[in-house]
Amino acid sequence: MAQFPIDTVRHSTAHLMAAAIDRLYKDARFGVGPALKNGFYYDVRLAEGKTLVEEDLQAIEKEMARMKQEKLPYIRSELPIDEAIQLMEKRGQIYKVELLNLLKTKGSTAVSKEVGDEIADPEATKITHVSVYALGEFIDLCRGPHVEHSGQTGAVKLSNIAAAYWRGNAKNDTMLRIYGLCFEDFKEVKAEEKRLEELKECDHRKLGAKHNLFFFEPNEVGVGLGFWTPAGTVLRKELEKLATECEHRDGYEMICTPELAREALYHRSGHLPYYEADMYNPIEIEGENYRLRPMNCPHHHMMYLNKLWSYRELPAKFAEYGKVFRYEPSGALTGLMRTRGFCQNDAHIYCRPDQAKDLFVEVMHLHAHYYDLFGIKDYYMRLSLPDLDKLDKYVNEPQKWLDAVDIIRAAMKESGYRYQEVQGEAAFYGPKVDFQIVNALGNEFTISTNQLDFYASQRFGLEYQGEDGAKHPVYVIHRAPLGSHERFAAFLIEHYKAVFPTWLAPEQVRIITVAEDDQLKVYAKRVYDYLFNANITTATGGLRIKLDKTNETLNKKVRTAQQERVPYIVVIGKREMEENTIAIRLRNNKTITVTPADFAARLKYEIANRLDLAAEESVEIKPEVLREF
Amino acid sequence: MAQFPIDTVRHSTAHLMAAAIDRLYKDARFGVGPALKNGFYYDVRLAEGKTLVEEDLQAIEKEMARMKQEKLPYIRSELPIDEAIQLMEKRGQIYKVELLNLLKTKGSTAVSKEVGDEIADPEATKITHVSVYALGEFIDLCRGPHVEHSGQTGAVKLSNIAAAYWRGNAKNDTMLRIYGLCFEDFKEVKAEEKRLEELKECDHRKLGAKHNLFFFEPNEVGVGLGFWTPAGTVLRKELEKLATECEHRDGYEMICTPELAREALYHRSGHLPYYEADMYNPIEIEGENYRLRPMNCPHHHMMYLNKLWSYRELPAKFAEYGKVFRYEPSGALTGLMRTRGFCQNDAHIYCRPDQAKDLFVEVMHLHAHYYDLFGIKDYYMRLSLPDLDKLDKYVNEPQKWLDAVDIIRAAMKESGYRYQEVQGEAAFYGPKVDFQIVNALGNEFTISTNQLDFYASQRFGLEYQGEDGAKHPVYVIHRAPLGSHERFAAFLIEHYKAVFPTWLAPEQVRIITVAEDDQLKVYAKRVYDYLFNANITTATGGLRIKLDKTNETLNKKVRTAQQERVPYIVVIGKREMEENTIAIRLRNNKTITVTPADFAARLKYEIANRLDLAAEESVEIKPEVLREF
Repeated sequence: MAQFPIDTVRHSTAHLMAAAIDRLYKDARFGVGPALKNGFYYDVRLAEGKTLVEEDLQAIEKEMARMKQEKLPYIRSELPIDEAIQLMEKRGQIYKVELLNLLKTKGSTAVSKEVGDEIADPEATKITHVSVYALGEFIDLCRGPHVEHSGQTGAVKLSNIAAAYWRGNAKNDTMLRIYGLCFEDFKEVKAEEKRLEELKECDHRKLGAKHNLFFFEPNEVGVGLGFWTPAGTVLRKELEKLATECEHRDGYEMICTPELAREALYHRSGHLPYYEADMYNPIEIEGENYRLRPMNCPHHHMMYLNKLWSYRELPAKFAEYGKVFRYEPSGALTGLMRTRGFCQNDAHIYCRPDQAKDLFVEVMHLHAHYYDLFGIKDYYMRLSLPDLDKLDKYVNEPQKWLDAVDIIRAAMKESGYRYQEVQGEAAFYGPKVDFQIVNALGNEFTISTNQLDFYASQRFGLEYQGEDGAKHPVYVIHRAPLGSHERFAAFLIEHYKAVFPTWLAPEQVRIITVAEDDQLKVYAKRVYDYLFNANITTATGGLRIKLDKTNETLNKKVRTAQQERVPYIVVIGKREMEENTIAIRLRNNKTITVTPADFAARLKYEIANRLDLAAEESVEIKPEVLREF
Repeated sequence: MAQFPIDTVRHSTAHLMAAAIDRLYKDARFGVGPALKNGFYYDVRLAEGKTLVEEDLQAIEKEMARMKQEKLPYIRSELPIDEAIQLMEKRGQIYKVELLNLLKTKGSTAVSKEVGDEIADPEATKITHVSVYALGEFIDLCRGPHVEHSGQTGAVKLSNIAAAYWRGNAKNDTMLRIYGLCFEDFKEVKAEEKRLEELKECDHRKLGAKHNLFFFEPNEVGVGLGFWTPAGTVLRKELEKLATECEHRDGYEMICTPELAREALYHRSGHLPYYEADMYNPIEIEGENYRLRPMNCPHHHMMYLNKLWSYRELPAKFAEYGKVFRYEPSGALTGLMRTRGFCQNDAHIYCRPDQAKDLFVEVMHLHAHYYDLFGIKDYYMRLSLPDLDKLDKYVNEPQKWLDAVDIIRAAMKESGYRYQEVQGEAAFYGPKVDFQIVNALGNEFTISTNQLDFYASQRFGLEYQGEDGAKHPVYVIHRAPLGSHERFAAFLIEHYKAVFPTWLAPEQVRIITVAEDDQLKVYAKRVYDYLFNANITTATGGLRIKLDKTNETLNKKVRTAQQERVPYIVVIGKREMEENTIAIRLRNNKTITVTPADFAARLKYEIANRLDLAAEESVEIKPEVLREF
């Protein structure tokens, strides 16, 4: 079987599933069915919007097994496009007809990522012929390639059914998206099933509920509007503190701007009408329409316009952890990953053209600094370029585009980080660099987007006075290395499986007595007071320490603290009391005995330097020395 | 003249002004005209909404002087109320007629503070007779007392005209509010004029513009929506850091909740319909109406409801610097003092009844701690009680009311702070304590309100499981000691006249070279780098230090830094360079020479302890010692 690439096997197996469904369900209409990293999916709409349950999947699997036995050949034919349209119309395949018409008129169906790519052909602008594959009675529009016959399809397990909109658009029909795991043999399928089962446990929604980090209240408050509990809020605040310190080092200044504005602002910025579908509806105030902001940029531009800037004063770097509001259809909301209101780690840099490259490099180093800190290794950068043949699709200034691309490309090279160039995906106002990271579930996603914008200067008249006394437009760099609090916290929850390093841990220390004993309790309280007042700086005002006052057994108390992922468990017994020490249960279950002062010093050092030492038996604390002058 | 109390003199002079206007302007209609701390005002509406200019005020003053010469007597008569109504109707005094009708039907006109109190009589529920005063041809409804004749009125200067709504309600007629300064002699009037002139310079709007702390952009963004520049944002962030640390010490936990919610939430809370006039209009999302929140409480209650609480776990203290949005008529907006969106230093405490008193005391100590830190001495607390005869006006549970009053009163007494009791001004859901402070302009205002709420428990079902296993309602303490960022910053700008202590200063240190010299510049940069990297903790991520790179003279550079209120000016000359020291120009214009390391230690100590040492030549730095265990 290894004669075919696994992607070919998977895609052929997707056809096999479609053929099985076509046998079992009258009037099934098929959308697209691409191969995935561990199998495939196929979007289907059954007659009268019928849905499928677990048992139906088993029946489909059985039918697939039968057809596999039949060793049905995959037969390719090339058809003139109009003939293909007629064929699909006759077979009632309305979605295929729609795709064929797009191919015919636009040369591509790739208006949405959701469509998959098995028939998209961005190169071809005039399509006259398409290929179709027959498998038994089932005929599908497809570029191929395929295996030779159904006996060569993969070991398969239909794993999941989800709802999906046709072409990813909420205005279109709802389809059933049927996922199949598919490998060369069943051992691999089983292993993948197990891996997915484990990964489900890392889903930030599951961990968020288990550790009470955040919740939604759909009835009275509304979907997609997150509540961050005390434990979850620690993550936000520590991320803000981290960003504040790093941005201070890079010369940013913090600002604070309003969450809404008259529609006039969004007409100027171009968000109205171009981005209106993603914005909240208007609020009427004294006869005027206002909008909650979907982005911070227009407000930051107004801040820039508040004074006249000289070339000497640039760059200006305005940072704001600014709340933005975007309309998302309720079906698209996904825990903290996709919400209707989120807080961006936002800043805009206003600079002269001659400063842009170095500043872009600085921004990339800032990203790398964060990723190193969190131990994120699986990331790369994606430079989206305009389609240079179609530059008029973008701002009508090809030379500015090319200049901006040169600046970014030079910055990418200088920074030395791994990057890819992608043609044709740039924002209309300038090239952008996306930071792609892979989460614990193995999904790649964009955590942050950086743009070099020469368009904003025109729309907002963002200028500086040059050495020559004349006014010149600035470049604007949009950057948000930590993305949004919501999305980055979701990522971190999965990344750490909720076992956070001490500086991020909602509760950092818990004190437990070995027995219900008044003397021990007094000593435990003394230790608590000492550590609480030890001037340990955190984003929430001090050490996050708790004294366990329950009447449980020692084992139960330790287990609870461990389940609650407290990095340090201080255990107080008679010996510790007599010796004025404390026993500390580390994350690796080992116990060390130290003085409260030594423990305070260790915590201070670990938290200030954002280290993760909760499993280290001995820590060398480098004293804080003021650098010599 | 000293035979009459100054308030009587002022109020009689207000009548004199009204009589003069009555002579000069046909169809002038009078509202109310109370005495003030430095004079009086009178609200007038002229025929056809005519307005007045500076010169008109001079003409009125002249007429008043003439009438003073005439020594016209103030003649009091007591009239049956219906006869008084007829008299005022005949004279066309429609506002007086309205007041008399209110007196007749409700026994009081005091539905709004704006009305003034000269005719309000909250004691009397049945009013049958009122008193009127004649002064020449002018007759006014008035309780008196007055001076005997116009020759005994005060030295007066009509100082200002403002617009005011009749009875403070935007739906009513607009009146001209004419202010007069009034004292026993002209020397005092002159002194007051001078004082007011100086105070104008402290107005936070004026200082905010001068030092570029904040601005509004009415055209594209909208009135009442503040932009905080980098300098202004420092105030917000430092206030947040202060509150975070103090609240951590008191056991609060930070949370983060959404800025909007479905209307259902506000129906549950009672904000709809009772508070609707102060709320923004709805935003429609997927066919449902949402509202921007006018208060954080309902969201905090939802946070409380997220789990079941045991009596052992209480109190729960949820803190959030939460953004709220309130509709204010554009005419009512006043710089940062009154805006359409602000950030509250908010928290809610959920506790058992037996904990309420101690927690209320703790909250009052927190207030006092802040006020001490800022050197605010002129404050007192105002305990608003229900009108006990009309308890049914409030929640229909007199005993709960009385219990709550007992708890607060006991807390007030225990705390030992100055307080006043005021009958009849409580919120409908429980008694409240307002913190009244006096700002630099001599105006008293409420900076913060604390409430003991037993009503929220009922509406939201806020309960805990008692030792008895049964569920019991909690008390909710609403508290916001620093009020809102906007209002408190406005207060601090005026309080400090923008000369902030180092920890609050937008820029803390500026480095200046005595001459344009490359060697000096290199040394200055070394000093800058050393101080910048000296691990000095601030709310904005580190020391706020700048290197002056302009080509100005030394004097000009020093003067600029002083005008920009930078507490420490580091002056770098040849001698300093040779000796590896720095010369520091203090706020008192004295200069000290120290090593960079000593200066860093001084800054660290001063900022960490929120001291104000920028005018101290020598500072004793107490080393940070970990308290002994």
